Amino acid sequence: MQREITLRARPRGVHLVTSEVERALPELRELRVGVAHLFIRHTSASLTLNENASPDVRRDVESWLNAYVPEDFAWTHTLEGSDDMPAHVKASLMGPSLTMPIADGRLALGTWQGIYLCEHRDRGGERSLLATLHGEG
Amino acid sequence: MQREITLRARPRGVHLVTSEVERALPELRELRVGVAHLFIRHTSASLTLNENASPDVRRDVESWLNAYVPEDFAWTHTLEGSDDMPAHVKASLMGPSLTMPIADGRLALGTWQGIYLCEHRDRGGERSLLATLHGEG
Amino acid sequence: MQREITLRARPRGVHLVTSEVERALPELRELRVGVAHLFIRHTSASLTLNENASPDVRRDVESWLNAYVPEDFAWTHTLEGSDDMPAHVKASLMGPSLTMPIADGRLALGTWQGIYLCEHRDRGGERSLLATLHGEG
Repeated sequence: MQREITLRARPRGVHLVTSEVERALPELRELRVGVAHLFIRHTSASLTLNENASPDVRRDVESWLNAYVPEDFAWTHTLEGSDDMPAHVKASLMGPSLTMPIADGRLALGTWQGIYLCEHRDRGGERSLLATLHGEG
Repeated sequence: MQREITLRARPRGVHLVTSEVERALPELRELRVGVAHLFIRHTSASLTLNENASPDVRRDVESWLNAYVPEDFAWTHTLEGSDDMPAHVKASLMGPSLTMPIADGRLALGTWQGIYLCEHRDRGGERSLLATLHGEG
Repeated sequence: MQREITLRARPRGVHLVTSEVERALPELRELRVGVAHLFIRHTSASLTLNENASPDVRRDVESWLNAYVPEDFAWTHTLEGSDDMPAHVKASLMGPSLTMPIADGRLALGTWQGIYLCEHRDRGGERSLLATLHGEG
């Protein structure tokens, strides 16, 4: 099963999207055991799993990214704005996809794990994900 | 096939766990071609593949992580200890899962590849993995 | 379906290999919906997805990696050359594999996404990939 999920435009930063993704995938319930692949079709936003409770964690992940992949660096690719090239590097560091186990009709995440959409551009716009599920019912 | 694997508590640092993981998955032998997905259900420990020979490599990966994701940073999320927020960032950098090819009943790793459990907390405790295998027998 | 792909030796740096990988996988055409797993069997080269248009982006990703995972660091594992230990860290940061959705017989990448082979060694030689496809025809 494959389905496109469109995430609305969000400001630069790290956003928790677990419920939104789960709601878009009612077919999860039909799988007893399997794997869910979530893929972002962009090169300046990314997906990762991290702590789903404190918004401070998301703010701190964003701060670290900005400090260690700074706009002020000897970039040569600058014509799309000072946030563009850092966005590309951050996207590869966090990664373009997540593969998550499915158990008993649900994403088998740990208690504290949530899906982060990392928006690395100042104005990234809508982001398109492609979800592919497979397993046994 | 899906199976939980519990890894015993280990000190902060990078640990080679290939044999332990393979021993826990006798079902690998039944698959001629396939994929093994290994998923860590935590946000302050991570999984990666790297050099399986020299312990120096593991020590150096840990040194780099400590130098570039330092405890001494403008973190706001500090109430769980100075090792906590760096652990979250390191976990996203290394990643929460590995997908590895299966060929002829074994993980088809390169000669020098081994599975690293990266324990980012000072006292992380036991770590729970969920392994999902699929393929053709 | 599983197939080994040998990529010819390339200089240290970031290389776009999308067409080469797609040409090596004619079986993609037989899958309506599925997932392609691409795995590099080495610990000093890596795979990521990023911008497929401007060569400047690839040059800048390489510059960032060299600046933030420097050869001049307190490495202990130095007997294989000053480019070796940075290569191991970079390989884990970028990652050893890509999982990409397949739709209508093609890799369902975004418009701007391309497959990067990141060669982290000065003289890495040929690199061996293992591709595993699964899905529905």
